[in-house]
This record gives sequence, structure tokens and C-alpha cells, in this order.
Amino acid sequence: MRFTNKDVVMIYDTDYQGVAHYASYYRFVTNALFAMKEKLFKDLDAKYKNLWFVIAESKAEYKKPLKFGDKIDVVIEPQLLGKKSVRYNFSIYRGKELTTNGYITQVSIDKRTWKSLEIPGPLAKKIGMKEIIL
Amino acid sequence: MRFTNKDVVMIYDTDYQGVAHYASYYRFVTNALFAMKEKLFKDLDAKYKNLWFVIAESKAEYKKPLKFGDKIDVVIEPQLLGKKSVRYNFSIYRGKELTTNGYITQVSIDKRTWKSLEIPGPLAKKIGMKEIIL
Amino acid sequence: MRFTNKDVVMIYDTDYQGVAHYASYYRFVTNALFAMKEKLFKDLDAKYKNLWFVIAESKAEYKKPLKFGDKIDVVIEPQLLGKKSVRYNFSIYRGKELTTNGYITQVSIDKRTWKSLEIPGPLAKKIGMKEIIL
Amino acid sequence: MRFTNKDVVMIYDTDYQGVAHYASYYRFVTNALFAMKEKLFKDLDAKYKNLWFVIAESKAEYKKPLKFGDKIDVVIEPQLLGKKSVRYNFSIYRGKELTTNGYITQVSIDKRTWKSLEIPGPLAKKIGMKEIIL
Repeated sequence: MRFTNKDVVMIYDTDYQGVAHYASYYRFVTNALFAMKEKLFKDLDAKYKNLWFVIAESKAEYKKPLKFGDKIDVVIEPQLLGKKSVRYNFSIYRGKELTTNGYITQVSIDKRTWKSLEIPGPLAKKIGMKEIIL
Repeated sequence: MRFTNKDVVMIYDTDYQGVAHYASYYRFVTNALFAMKEKLFKDLDAKYKNLWFVIAESKAEYKKPLKFGDKIDVVIEPQLLGKKSVRYNFSIYRGKELTTNGYITQVSIDKRTWKSLEIPGPLAKKIGMKEIIL
Repeated sequence: MRFTNKDVVMIYDTDYQGVAHYASYYRFVTNALFAMKEKLFKDLDAKYKNLWFVIAESKAEYKKPLKFGDKIDVVIEPQLLGKKSVRYNFSIYRGKELTTNGYITQVSIDKRTWKSLEIPGPLAKKIGMKEIIL
Repeated sequence: MRFTNKDVVMIYDTDYQGVAHYASYYRFVTNALFAMKEKLFKDLDAKYKNLWFVIAESKAEYKKPLKFGDKIDVVIEPQLLGKKSVRYNFSIYRGKELTTNGYITQVSIDKRTWKSLEIPGPLAKKIGMKEIIL
């Protein structure tokens, strides 16, 4: 499974050094995950009302600076890490140039208790998260 | 009542135009309100557990641009607008130079119902919000 | 002239009170202005290389809270205030419900000197900014 | 060398899940790095006018969620990675509880050319960055 979201570097993503601030790249990743979930899981939201994903890890390598107005493609590749956590590997491209990569790890919890929950099978299948690393 | 909070313009407040992004100034105001409440109302928090303030209005005039690393004084002057709302007038100084001014209006609500509530008397008195504009 | 931009309330726009943080609304407005300029002025950028717009004023009234995932329409109506400044009135709708309104005022400057400049005629005409308030 | 900065989780750091948004933790780290540099390097700024540090990598592991108003200690431990890059390991504590850790890697560049530069010796010595990993 590979999901691509188109995005743009906005003025509030930049800082006085003239390029995107390092924490802004996580905004692009958050946007891409949101778009992916809107497209793929929307129907599952009603079914799993008490399921929340919370972030357990974030990682980014900045190879080329992004500038205001840059059009980017944010590519997300999900990977099951176990029954309760999933890693979203991301790559940010400007045209064919890889500018940034990294990952976000999420853990599924019950939002009433904040205890971890197994990721529901239909949800795991939906994004074709076949590979399990344990 | 006049409360002053010292603050600094951070890199994430700036944008590629080299100065603080206009929405960042509200961060300085939020910081000053937080510091004021920590100092003056801390003991009242336990008493009014269901009281929340939510923002009804925000306004800022930008007279001089702020830059990365600028040391600023954020002056807050509260003003009761009625029994359920308070305006926090703010002025941001860099040394003696007025760089920005404006206000934030807050309305008091019951956080369980999101219905408006009268601002408790002890809280109103505490910051000496004498002047009422109706 | 009336320009509408579609947007969505993201998780990073919200705060622990469960609704969009008051300063986030200016992000929606910044997005809408960017989209408007991309659509209408793109060809003028090359022509006026030293022209920058900087924010002189911001104002918002919050009538109904926005929540995570809300789909919104941000309507921009430009209004010339003089030869060097333009006000962008905005209204944020969730469906037919007006949730927020206000304005952003921008001043045109020469980015090399930070001195004010007259807004170029072709640019002013392009968005049909007829009404002048002095 | 070990530097500690005191900070507070602000309302704009939180999201609707009721805890600090994952990207906000980098704000705490940025604040701590700024405070460290203000204290230790201030006199070197004038000497190395064309030196900028840019972020090459960011990493965080979230062990315990932080909430609005939490008082935190952000501990920074610098580590030279080579002649042109330094890693700032960070740990965020709430009292004695480790809530988050990770690192930021910075590369020194000449701000006029954006080409990498060797970190000046006096600056490297000042924070006692002895350990070199190559």
C-alpha cells in the first residue's frame, strides 16, 4: 500500500532562515495521514467509535530544504509493527527530488481508558499492511 | 490592573519574510494571559472546576515588525464587558517601542454544557476589573 | 469579487478544549488568500518581484466553535482601503452556518527597503477591488 | 555538558485528544536549545556572523502524554558527530518521570552559500562536546 497526498509549503511553515521549519514537515505528514484515512477508513470510523491512534514515535531526515510555495508529494507507506502499532513511513518529494523521509509510529488505544487495543482486522487489511516486524 | 509578561520571539514565530508571522503575536498574548492567571487565579481554579473561558474575538494592529530573538514585554489590561465576558487589551513593547496592540475577548462558559456562565465575583474582583462597558 | 476556498479543520488546529484554537482560524484565512493569489495573480508575480504584502491588522469574531474534521468554506472579499493597503474580509462557513468572520489588512511594501509601495494597478483591477474607503 | 530548561505545556501545544500534539514536543526542544545558546554562546554570535545551524534530523519517542499546564524540564546533552554536525540528545521530564526522549541533529552552514562549514573550535569546546562518533 502506497498513498500519495499533494500539498504546498505555506508561509506559516517557513522561518526566518527562508526555508520550512523542521517541525512543519510533520504537518505535511499529518495532512497525508488524514487524507489517507478519509479515503480508506471513513466507513470504519462509525464501527470503532472508541478507537484512537496516538503517536509513539516520530522521525525525520531533512535532505533538501523546502521553500514557501513548493508543491510537494507526500508518500505514505504503512507497515504493521505488531497487533497494536503501525508505522507510517513517509517520503516527501518535490517533483522527482526526495527532500525528506522518516516515519510516524502510532499505537491504537481505547479513548475511554487510554489503554492499548489491538488494531481491528478489517482496518489492518484495508490498507494492505501485510508485513509484520516483531 | 496591569500585568506584564516577558517573552522572546522564537524561530518558529518567524516566517520567510524575516519577521514574526502575524498569527504568532496571539501566541505571545496567550502566554501572557496564562502567566497572569497562574499568578492571580491559581487558587480559584479548584473552586470553579466547570468554568472555562473561550475566545469570542481577537484583534491585533501590527505597527513595527518583530524579529527572531527580540525580547518583548506583553502588557495585559483586563476590562469587564458584562457579566459573562471580559476583554484583555494587550500592548507588545520592544524596550520602549510599542510594536503591536489589540485585544482578546473571552466568554465564560460551563464546560459541560458550553452554555455561558456569569464570571464569578471573586475572580472578577481579583484582577480589579472595575470598568464595565455595556 | 468573492473568492471561496475549501478547507478542513486538522488535529493540529484544535486544543484540549476540543475545538479549533482561536489563532488557527488565521491559518484558514492565510490558506484562502494563498489559493486566491495562486489563481488570480500568479502571472503578476514575475512582473512585481520586489513587491511584498505584510499584515497590518487582523480581526476575528468567533460565533460557533469548529471541530476536528469540519469541512469549511472560507469566503474572501477584498476591499481597497487606499493606494497602499487592502482589506480582505473573510467569512468561514460550515455548510450554511456562519461560524467566524473578520478581516486581514495588508500593506504593500518594497521588500528591499520595507517602505510602502502603491499597489500596482493591474493587480488592483484583477480582483475587481472597486470600492475605496478613505 | 548537560543543560536543563524549564518550560510549560501551553494550550496551543495540545489537541482535541486532550494531550500535547506530537510535533509540539519539538517546540520544547527548540526552546531549550535557544536558552542554552543564549546562555553559553551569546558572545560567539558576533564572531561567527555567517554561521547558521540547520536541522538535518529529528527524532522523538513519546512515553507518557503531557497535558496542558504541565511543568517540564527539558534536558539537552550535546554530542559532536563530526566536524560539521552536532546531535542534541533531549529528555523531557515531568518531575522525575521521563515522558519523552530523542534528538535533533544540526549541521553548520555558511548562510550566504548554504554550504556546510566546520563548527568553530571555541564553540565546540564551550559546550564540552568531547565525544566524537564517526
